[in-house]
Amino acid sequence: MTRLVLQNAAYVVTVDDADTVHPDTTVVVEDGTVTELRPAADGPVDGDEVVDATGRLVMPGLVNLHTHLPMTLLRGLAEDVDLQGFLTRVWAAEGAVMDEDTVELGATLGALESLLGGCTTQLDMYFHHEAAHRGAVAAGSRHVIGPVFMDGPGPDGLEWQQRLDLMRDWRRGLAAIGGPTVPLAAMPHATYTCSPEHLADVATLLQELVADPTGEASDAPRPLLTTHVSENAFENDDVRRRHGASPTEVLAGAGWLDGRVPFVAGHGVHLGPEDLELLVGAGAAVAHCPGSNLKLASGALPWEDVRRSGVRLGLGTDGCSSSNDLDMWQAMRQAALLARLTGGRPDVASAHDVLRAGTVDGARALGLGGEIGSVEPGKRADLVLLDLDRPHLTPVHDVAALLVFAAGRADVTDVLVDGEVVVRDGRSTRVDTADLLARARSRGAIAREAAREAARAEAARAEADRPAAPAAQEGPA
Amino acid sequence: MTRLVLQNAAYVVTVDDADTVHPDTTVVVEDGTVTELRPAADGPVDGDEVVDATGRLVMPGLVNLHTHLPMTLLRGLAEDVDLQGFLTRVWAAEGAVMDEDTVELGATLGALESLLGGCTTQLDMYFHHEAAHRGAVAAGSRHVIGPVFMDGPGPDGLEWQQRLDLMRDWRRGLAAIGGPTVPLAAMPHATYTCSPEHLADVATLLQELVADPTGEASDAPRPLLTTHVSENAFENDDVRRRHGASPTEVLAGAGWLDGRVPFVAGHGVHLGPEDLELLVGAGAAVAHCPGSNLKLASGALPWEDVRRSGVRLGLGTDGCSSSNDLDMWQAMRQAALLARLTGGRPDVASAHDVLRAGTVDGARALGLGGEIGSVEPGKRADLVLLDLDRPHLTPVHDVAALLVFAAGRADVTDVLVDGEVVVRDGRSTRVDTADLLARARSRGAIAREAAREAARAEAARAEADRPAAPAAQEGPA
Ligand SMILES: [Zn+2]
Ligand SMILES: [Zn+2]
Repeated sequence: MTRLVLQNAAYVVTVDDADTVHPDTTVVVEDGTVTELRPAADGPVDGDEVVDATGRLVMPGLVNLHTHLPMTLLRGLAEDVDLQGFLTRVWAAEGAVMDEDTVELGATLGALESLLGGCTTQLDMYFHHEAAHRGAVAAGSRHVIGPVFMDGPGPDGLEWQQRLDLMRDWRRGLAAIGGPTVPLAAMPHATYTCSPEHLADVATLLQELVADPTGEASDAPRPLLTTHVSENAFENDDVRRRHGASPTEVLAGAGWLDGRVPFVAGHGVHLGPEDLELLVGAGAAVAHCPGSNLKLASGALPWEDVRRSGVRLGLGTDGCSSSNDLDMWQAMRQAALLARLTGGRPDVASAHDVLRAGTVDGARALGLGGEIGSVEPGKRADLVLLDLDRPHLTPVHDVAALLVFAAGRADVTDVLVDGEVVVRDGRSTRVDTADLLARARSRGAIAREAAREAARAEAARAEADRPAAPAAQEGPA
Repeated sequence: MTRLVLQNAAYVVTVDDADTVHPDTTVVVEDGTVTELRPAADGPVDGDEVVDATGRLVMPGLVNLHTHLPMTLLRGLAEDVDLQGFLTRVWAAEGAVMDEDTVELGATLGALESLLGGCTTQLDMYFHHEAAHRGAVAAGSRHVIGPVFMDGPGPDGLEWQQRLDLMRDWRRGLAAIGGPTVPLAAMPHATYTCSPEHLADVATLLQELVADPTGEASDAPRPLLTTHVSENAFENDDVRRRHGASPTEVLAGAGWLDGRVPFVAGHGVHLGPEDLELLVGAGAAVAHCPGSNLKLASGALPWEDVRRSGVRLGLGTDGCSSSNDLDMWQAMRQAALLARLTGGRPDVASAHDVLRAGTVDGARALGLGGEIGSVEPGKRADLVLLDLDRPHLTPVHDVAALLVFAAGRADVTDVLVDGEVVVRDGRSTRVDTADLLARARSRGAIAREAAREAARAEAARAEADRPAAPAAQEGPA
């Protein structure tokens, strides 16, 4: 047995069911599991590794419930353009660089940014999902991903059936890559890019895998379904035109919401009351991405309505091509502020409420509520340490409010995932950061050039298509 | 002459009228004034002090156009309570600790937090304003403040006339404290706490001082007026009930909006079209504080409407008792995101637009547009350096978007105010930070105890006032 000790933390923010905050507490981790929270006054504890947490705060790792890590390479590539201009640039960049190696590189970069900022778990979605998983696991993340499904071949050239085969072969695929325990996820892109029949096939396959047709019951995977749902008003209109139903109703019709497989609805900005009722019945969760929703002018999720419906709320950043970074502290603060605007009162979404969304509620949404999401004996040690000895965190009158409304990713000093210290004193213990950033810049430059070339071609086409100007306007003005 | 050189910056974000971003550029500062931006390829420049800016970005210092620095000591003191609960706690805490020494301490703490995060100028408002100025100037800030006026004596025991006398005696008051050039400000609290007659007296005095009755014309102060304006709907209703006019109309009636004295309207969330017209006519500015407005559920300033009206928009954080921190990067990002929500489109408030609000537009609002707010030859060196060699700032596809949507205060390494390096490698060159934080914690603890005692007393009064419970409910449940 190996013992790691976080000695004498100024505060342990447990995010347990009572939102307990312990002052002056030592956290004991044995073989990667938290075994004890003891008063620091009881004296020091020996360990194979002892971290002096004096003046620091210990909290659970943040859970990013919706992102696209490889797109970190496209951060800021398509700003201040309309949707068509956005897609032109992003698709050109993806077409130019997103081979398996680059997807792995982008996922490592995204996981590194996430971990340095205290986000230990990401529900990711991108093509070449095994490459992405290799990259994020290498950085030390608890990284959840699976095949991305769309009708017709994806950018990786795979057809629907081939993706189902990859799912079936999970033991030799994702599971063989290793990393901390995560569910086996299937991630059709959206109800406007996947047919109801295809969606039903995916749900059926996951249910079969859970029932464990191989007979190796103890080894059956934990399943997870996720897709984009009601992100903006256009999507709702589009799906209703195609199917005469809301995106959530389409998923219910495809057997996604019978409660047998955990389900995470990405975004959920424009869910109606009937949608929320279907989601509650299935024990499903919404991945609220306030930064992306605001940046793309998709709308504002009504926090209080969703909370009252009983649907679980987690938080996400979305990908860097829309949200520009992967900062879960921003997601928490933005969620708290936006909830006050949509609710019209200052007591909507307390700091503790938002902290739960960013940690334990996200963990439960993934079916990992028994393992992570809070600092409690028996849970795995996905833990974050923050240095409180900073002007902007002084004085401390309310620990939860300090975390949500004043702290940020740069206050994170150390991060543990599954008991391993993957960030120490603000630096990755696993990634050669200088080398990674150099490679990211090099691939990024190619992506940028492709995006610019596509934008130029689009502008030239628009110019050629323009009707000739009337003669009267041809002279100098 | 002393020369300071920022050698070989990866980018200089000038925020000049063309939003020019220069790659690979050296910035030369002579006797505190920027004298040259030269291509780094032209070779190194000698100087008394040479900062290697390789891999770093240079930009103008941020301008916080509305805050209450001494209240930094009350950060998070009154969370998740209604307005009455908020005031009970904050007033009790202020009554218990806010003597002159503590105001100076709080202002130093607030200025230190601001400077470490790249905010070089603050338009501050608090009682004991000379003590606040001493504290902020000691930390190295370009700190703008003046007497705070209210009908009746303020917490400092001063009457209206005594405040006017302090204004008149500015040479022996604020000016004697020193620090970088700032306007002489008068800051009546609001139109619901100051009578129209009193407001008119203040405007008249400022105009007299500008006209320089002492005959020392070259030494005449630059004037500034500021107050809270239309922060929430309740204020608008209250002022209309008292005066039959909007807060802006009351100010216009008091001679504030004839354009002779620069005016900054704090918040301005609920300005009507007529109000905006009055403000445009006066060349006035609105200090938009999105973090505070959202946190207190005051509403959402309609960015696009204000921009279209022609009223200048600057950004502010408000004080830490409402907004919890003084982070101008949050203010920029929140402004950009909120503008997209209120505008309903993703191309409202570009990154450059928001950067201007956080820098040069704030400087112009203060009447300091000729001296600071951009990186241009002839302007004083209020400059910020950011380290770009970080995962969350890689790769760089769009420099302005990187600053607004991905960068943050912890990326700031060095800060110059008026040509002096006041932050070097993330640490203050002026403040004994450990000592300051210890004193802030000690005074903060007294404030916290006073707030708790007041909350207990309030709860006890509410309990005593409660009608006796019916007998049937008195037994055990
Ligand atoms: Zn997405
Ligand atoms: Zn204020």
